[in-house]
Formats: sequence, C-alpha cells, structure tokens
Amino acid sequence: MSTINPMISSLFAELQQVAYLRSTLGLLGWDEQTFMPSGGAEHRANQSAQLAGLAHERATQPHVGEWLSQIEAELPRQPVDSVTAANLREARRKYDRATKLDQTLVEELSRCATLAQQAWVGAKKARNFGQFLPWLDKMVGLKRQEAQAVGSTSGVLYDALLDDYEPGATTAEIQAVFTALRRELVPLVAAIAEAPRRPDAAILTRSYPVETQQKFARAAAAAIGFDFDRGRLDTSAHPFCSGIGPGDCRLTTRYHEHHFPGAFFGVLHEAGHGIYEQGLAPDQFGLACGEAASLGIHESQSRMWENLVGRSRAFWEHFYPAAQQAFPGALQEISLDQFHFAINDVRPSWIRVEADEVTYNLHIMLRFDLEQALIRDDLQPADLPTAWNERFQEYFGMTPPDDALGCLQDVHWSAGLLGYFPTYALGNMYASQFFDRARTELGDLSTMFARGEFQPLKEWLNTQIHRHGLQYRASELVEKVTGQKLSAEPLLTHLRGRFSPLFGV
Amino acid sequence: MSTINPMISSLFAELQQVAYLRSTLGLLGWDEQTFMPSGGAEHRANQSAQLAGLAHERATQPHVGEWLSQIEAELPRQPVDSVTAANLREARRKYDRATKLDQTLVEELSRCATLAQQAWVGAKKARNFGQFLPWLDKMVGLKRQEAQAVGSTSGVLYDALLDDYEPGATTAEIQAVFTALRRELVPLVAAIAEAPRRPDAAILTRSYPVETQQKFARAAAAAIGFDFDRGRLDTSAHPFCSGIGPGDCRLTTRYHEHHFPGAFFGVLHEAGHGIYEQGLAPDQFGLACGEAASLGIHESQSRMWENLVGRSRAFWEHFYPAAQQAFPGALQEISLDQFHFAINDVRPSWIRVEADEVTYNLHIMLRFDLEQALIRDDLQPADLPTAWNERFQEYFGMTPPDDALGCLQDVHWSAGLLGYFPTYALGNMYASQFFDRARTELGDLSTMFARGEFQPLKEWLNTQIHRHGLQYRASELVEKVTGQKLSAEPLLTHLRGRFSPLFGV
Repeated sequence: MSTINPMISSLFAELQQVAYLRSTLGLLGWDEQTFMPSGGAEHRANQSAQLAGLAHERATQPHVGEWLSQIEAELPRQPVDSVTAANLREARRKYDRATKLDQTLVEELSRCATLAQQAWVGAKKARNFGQFLPWLDKMVGLKRQEAQAVGSTSGVLYDALLDDYEPGATTAEIQAVFTALRRELVPLVAAIAEAPRRPDAAILTRSYPVETQQKFARAAAAAIGFDFDRGRLDTSAHPFCSGIGPGDCRLTTRYHEHHFPGAFFGVLHEAGHGIYEQGLAPDQFGLACGEAASLGIHESQSRMWENLVGRSRAFWEHFYPAAQQAFPGALQEISLDQFHFAINDVRPSWIRVEADEVTYNLHIMLRFDLEQALIRDDLQPADLPTAWNERFQEYFGMTPPDDALGCLQDVHWSAGLLGYFPTYALGNMYASQFFDRARTELGDLSTMFARGEFQPLKEWLNTQIHRHGLQYRASELVEKVTGQKLSAEPLLTHLRGRFSPLFGV
Repeated sequence: MSTINPMISSLFAELQQVAYLRSTLGLLGWDEQTFMPSGGAEHRANQSAQLAGLAHERATQPHVGEWLSQIEAELPRQPVDSVTAANLREARRKYDRATKLDQTLVEELSRCATLAQQAWVGAKKARNFGQFLPWLDKMVGLKRQEAQAVGSTSGVLYDALLDDYEPGATTAEIQAVFTALRRELVPLVAAIAEAPRRPDAAILTRSYPVETQQKFARAAAAAIGFDFDRGRLDTSAHPFCSGIGPGDCRLTTRYHEHHFPGAFFGVLHEAGHGIYEQGLAPDQFGLACGEAASLGIHESQSRMWENLVGRSRAFWEHFYPAAQQAFPGALQEISLDQFHFAINDVRPSWIRVEADEVTYNLHIMLRFDLEQALIRDDLQPADLPTAWNERFQEYFGMTPPDDALGCLQDVHWSAGLLGYFPTYALGNMYASQFFDRARTELGDLSTMFARGEFQPLKEWLNTQIHRHGLQYRASELVEKVTGQKLSAEPLLTHLRGRFSPLFGV
C-alpha cells in the first residue's frame, strides 16, 4: 500500500478508545466529588483503578508504538495536513512518556499518592510537618525517578515533570519571566501595604443567602457564555471543572453564606475553564487537537474570566444592580465603587487559594523555586519548612505562624503534582497577553461588558484559542495569537493599571 | 497441582473485573437518567457502548470457559463449599448464555432496541400502532433467534428468555399459579366494581408541595431501613433503583404536586429494591452469591415494602400524624380511615404502572399470555392490538379506547425485554409468601409498624433472603424460607383480607 492513511485512522481510533476510558474515569471522579454516598468510596476506588489500568494498558500497547514508528517513517514521503501532524506529534510524546515509566513505578506512584494525601490531611490538621515528612521524602524520590526515566532535551530534571502539564515549556524560560515579574511585584505589594486608601472588605462577609448565590452565579456563568445545555454546575468541597467529553462539561463550586467572592469568582473561574472545554473541536475528541493546549493556557482562560473580566469595573456596571437586587440586605447601601474596591482588595496572606490578583503570583514563584530545589536534590524535604518560611518573609515581609499556613497548605505535593504550580502563574501572564490582543482586535471591551455583552470576547477566544486544541503548543499559540512571546509585561501593566488608581499608589 | 482452588480464584477475579465494568456502566446509566446535560447524550452512548463491549468481551473470553470446564471436571473429586458451588453454577449459566449468542445477533439486538424504542415513543404519542409494527416484528424475530440460540431444557422457547430474568423458572409452573390467581382475581375485581362503599380518592390529588413530598418520602425510606450513607434518592423521568456496587445504591422517583401516592409509594417501592441491594454480601461482589436471586425475588422486596407494609393501616397509624403535619392543607380534615381507604382504592384502569394491588396482576397475566404467543409464533405482531383488546375485555370488562392505553403503553417489548413481565406478578406472590412467614417468625408485625418499628422485618429479610444472593434460585429460596412452593394463595388471602372489609364485599 502506498498510503499511510489507513494506519493513521487505526491509530487515532485506538487513541479515541483510550480517551473514552479516561472520560468515563473522569465521570467516576466527578461523581465521587459531588454525589457519591460516603459508603461507596472503597468500591469507587476499585472501579477507578480498573479503568485507569485499562486506559494505561491500551495506551501503551506495542502495536500503538509500531504504528507510530511506521507512520513517522513514511511522513517525509507522504506529508499530512497540519492538524494530523500535530495529533501525531503529541501521540508520540504521550506514548513515549507512558512507555518510559515501568509498571512498578506507575503503581508505586499511584499508591504513594493515595497514602501521602491521607498523611497530608492528618499532618495539616495537626499542624505537624513531621507527620508528612516521610511521605514527602518518598514522593520526591519517586518523582525524581519519574523525571529520570522520562528525561528531557534540556537535561534539566524538573523539565521532564513540567512537560506533563505544559508540553514543551522549560524551567529556564519560566524562570526568566518569573524573575521579571517578581522584580516588579514585590515593591508593588509593599507599596499597596502602605497605601493611603483601603477598601471595606467586610461588606463581602455580610449575609449572602446560599440559594441566591447559586442563582446569581449560575446566571453570570451563562451570561459569559457557559452553555448549560452542554454542562452543569454543582457543589463540591473543592471547586473544579471536569470536561467529561463533547457536550458534557461539569463545574463545581462551594458556597459560604458569609463570603460572597469565594463562590462567585470561583464559578467565573471554573466557567472560564468550562468555556474552553466547550470550545474544543468535538470531531477531534481523543486527539491532541481536541484537548487543551496546556494547563497554563487552560488557566489563562479561567483567570481571564475571573479577574480581567469578572473583577473589572465594567463587568459590575452591568451586574451590580442585579447583585443589589439579589442581596438587598448586604448591598443596598453600598455603592458600585465601594463594592468594586472591596472585590479588589490586596493584602499579603498565608493561603494561596485565597490570595488576591497581585500577591497570587508570588505564592506560585515560591513553590516553583522550592520544588525545583527538591527535584534537583538541593533542598532536603526535612528542610522544607525553614526554606518556605525564609522565602515567604522575603516575598511577603512576614513569616507563617505554623506549617498549616505555610508549606502544608496545598494538596499538590502529596498528590505527586510536582511541576504543576508554575502553570498557574503562566496562566495569569497568558491571560493578560490574550486579553490585550482581544482588545486590539475587538475594540473597547469595557463598553461591551458594561452592556452585558460577553459574546464577542467568548467567540474570539473560541476562534483564536479553543478550536485549535493542542495543534500549537502554548508558547507557539501565544505567539501566533498575540505576535509576542510569553511575557510578564502585559500582566504587570494590567496590575498597575487596576490597582494604582484604586489604592492611590 | 492437586487443588482447583487457585483456578477458582482466577475465575472469580475475572468475573469480578467484568462486574466492575458493569458497575461503571450502571453509573453511566444512572447519570444519564438524573444529571447528564442533554448535550452529552451522543458522547454517553459511545462511552456506554465501549464499556458494554468490554464487559461482554471479557465475560466470553475462551479461558473463562476453559477454567470453568476444568473446575467442573475436578468437582466430583474435590467438592467445594455450597457458596462456591452456587457461584460456579451461575457462572456456567451466564457464560453459556453469553457465548451461545453470536456477536452479530447481540449487536443487532442492541441496535434494534435503540431504534425500536424511538419508534415506540413516536407511535405511542401518535396513538398509532402501525408505526411500531415493523419494529415489533423485527424485535420478536430477533428474540426468537435469541431463544433458539440459548435453548432450554424444557424445550419451550419462551423459557430461554424467562431464564435471563428468573433463573430456573419455567413457563409451565408460572402458568399454573397465574391460572389459580386469575380464577380468584377476576370475580374479586368484579365484586369490588359493584361494591357498596367507595373511597374518596380525590383527597390524594390535592396540593402536596413537592419539596415537602421529597422530605417526607426520604424520611419514610430511611425509617424502613434504606441506608442513606450507602445510597441516594434523586429525581428522574422514570423511577428506578440502581445498585452501583457495595456501599452505593441509588434510587430515583418523580414528583407531581397533585398526586401524592405516585412519588411516595414509588419511593417505598424503590427503597425495597434498595434495601435488597444494600443487604447483598459485599465480599461476594461480582459473583452469584453477591447478586439478587432473580427479578421476581427483587420485586417481592419492593412490593412488600410498597404494598404489604406501606399500604397497611398499621404503617399509617405511625406515619399519618406526620403526614397531616407535613400536608396540613390537604390532610388536616381527613381521618386516618379516609386516607387509608383512598390509598387502597381499587378500580380497573388501562395503565399497568398506575394499577392498584388487585388489578395489577391481571395486567401482567395479559402480557404474559401475549408475549408467549408472540414467541411461539401463534400470534402475529400485526394482530397484537386485537388480541390485547379482547383479553382486556375478558379480564377487566372493558376495552381500551386506543393502543396508547392498550398494547403500546409499556416500553418493554420495544426494548427487547420479552420474558420480563411475569417477574412482576411472581414478585407479588413471593412477597405475600415471605411476609406470612415473617409474621409467623416475628410475631405481630402490625403492632411493630404502628410503633414505627421496621427493623425486625428488615433484618429478617436481610438474614433470610438478601445475604444469600443467588446461592439459591428463586423457587428453592421461597421453599427454604417459607417451607412452601411458589403459590398464589398467600397473595389471594392478603388481597381478600385487605379489600373485602374496606369495600364491604
């Protein structure tokens, strides 16, 4: 036969079968977090382990590798279209990654993650790092093994982990933009701390009835473009977005009567992820061009809707009258300016997930530095609390009173997610870069938002970003869309532009 | 090696893997009926088809059959305990059934069921049997093929279908008890139709706010013993109970503000199924002794809690004050006797699922007769409406005005569930047999119910029935528990005992 197309079709059909298994695994996970009765936990663990095993087994079948090799050998003679080329490129990346890890290591990582998370929950509750230390030790060791097995073209061990979340990114380039960002953020945070004006943030902790919050947040998610015929919004202990598959994307949040921003901006954030998932090409399901470009790009979508749109004054010019009507007890006497200042309060705080837009990235850089050091073996897990606290003092000018408010606060390391943190800050930078470009192309977004018009931005994102999936890797995508490489400048410009006038600094 | 135990372990581990796949398939189905957004339907069909295929493939692997044969050959020399023997017996039954059907027929049946159900929905809506006829024709043909492929020891074709739902049951024995039952029921129905007293059934269609109905029904399900730490209750268009696996059993119902009994007795019914599922031995998951004995036995549990318990006067001696408090607008002025008579109204009606306890079984017998005739090829699908209406006149003394109220009312035939209907009436008979025995062993159940004590009955069912799973087939189980063979007498005694005093007949 002179054509490689039938083999490509077989390969892609096989990858799609793997994706269906992963999609069902995703539904098991969603159900576990939302509706599963507590008594079903053990059975669910068995169901999930089975599907994870089947997916891994199917993805690493020798004939998948053989097909890939034969197709790659033919490619110089029979070039394929760029979508197919991208699907093949990423299929190779995933296949190599999956087959480089032997089954023992995969199982060891999975078991360690389960047990380490249990230990972490206990240690955090007891504010006792010592309880978690043996598990952190074990996990760092396993992740080093994983990184060694996978390898990286740069030779930097950490890059092998990063590549799983941000394909093609390197520590060196991230380090460069983070340094530029930190140089400006630390003095900005310090200046705001000394600012002459402060918002009355207490208005956000008045009584906001949960049922009304649910309706209000749902309406906002629909207004910005999340399609509830192809998705849901439910409640879970930890907010997340789970793209089950074409036509089915599920968001969750959590509500507290006395904290309005938590659920509301949480929903905008998850809806941003959801709009991305809903914008992926359904006919590319199971292939790279039907999946998100990277976690950083994913986060750029959630942070854009949460912060650049959702905390803008224009957004609230449209929504604030409805908010006052929904929550008359809390907001009747509060002006739009007071409210807008309150939702944009900036203050150094211990906990990343509660951090404001300005300090948030410092939380990420701290973790990025420390996890690199752990993987390089330059930092011993036992020394983590000291290293954390020293660096926290350096970035925020204060020292956590205990490890629960310090190095024990996040689930990531116990879950084996080393290399994941930087994608959050990358997301913030990409978001500003994309948003600037959208303004250039679409004109005055603020006027649109103030009129409740979010569709132009949403459709621009659909066209420019979502529909490509992982046809382009993150760094290429940002350059293709904005004409610029990854840069901290647009984010810094946004932060200065928003917070200097508010705080008078 | 001189022992067959390792091979039995391997076989059972394999069967358990099949059961995990089916369990996950069950969750996909539950989600589809409850929470899935409409846009997810096509993707869900693909997910489900994949898992159904994997489960079938795994269950019919040649080595499963080889293990079974080798184990069976060794059994005379190395007898196993009775639980293991039962698990092997049913593994053989399922393996034979699955492997006797070739892949083409299985796929054809699956596709025909999907399309025939669509056609049925349209035909029922249009009250036009002709639209459904070609699909019924095709389905009956396929089910005859299935029955021929499976075969039966009795030589009766219909038995091969029945065996899938009621292992070991035969048309002949069911026909015998049905005949006895019908002989008594037809005159009882006629007598009640002429009765001097009638209840005021309209009190049940007053306003019963849905949210209060939900709370009230949930509390009743919990009171009779459904464990909400190991289960849920949600809303769906068609009520069902789905046992996902150990520790996770899910009920659904539907609520109408102006029809109290629909949701309430629906929840008691599904909770009865759920209590059975929750009472199965978790360590037997995936094996016969961890699954329900038959659909008839399953239905005996749901009908017992719904009717024998839930429509008894003693039950409402306990619950009626709470009902009056929950629905003061509807029930404040209504006496317990009035309410109890209303929920026990008897009148011939067109629709099976809305039928009362007395007429219900006649609906079943009619279907049983007709589907046997279809499978025997004694009745042509085109003649179904006439046959239905003639028989309906004979049993109920009236003729359906159209086929939507006649032979088009149920989904079963379009879904390929021929052989399923008799299990509903078997369930009613088994329920009365078990209930009589429980009274003999536990003493005055009515006094217990009036005090809100349902645990003794529930635990008796757990011990006598649930924990055995399918260790004993239905006919053996009823004999083991009650000392009697399947019989219509206890049900008839119950019906006369309940309805003669109420209606004065």
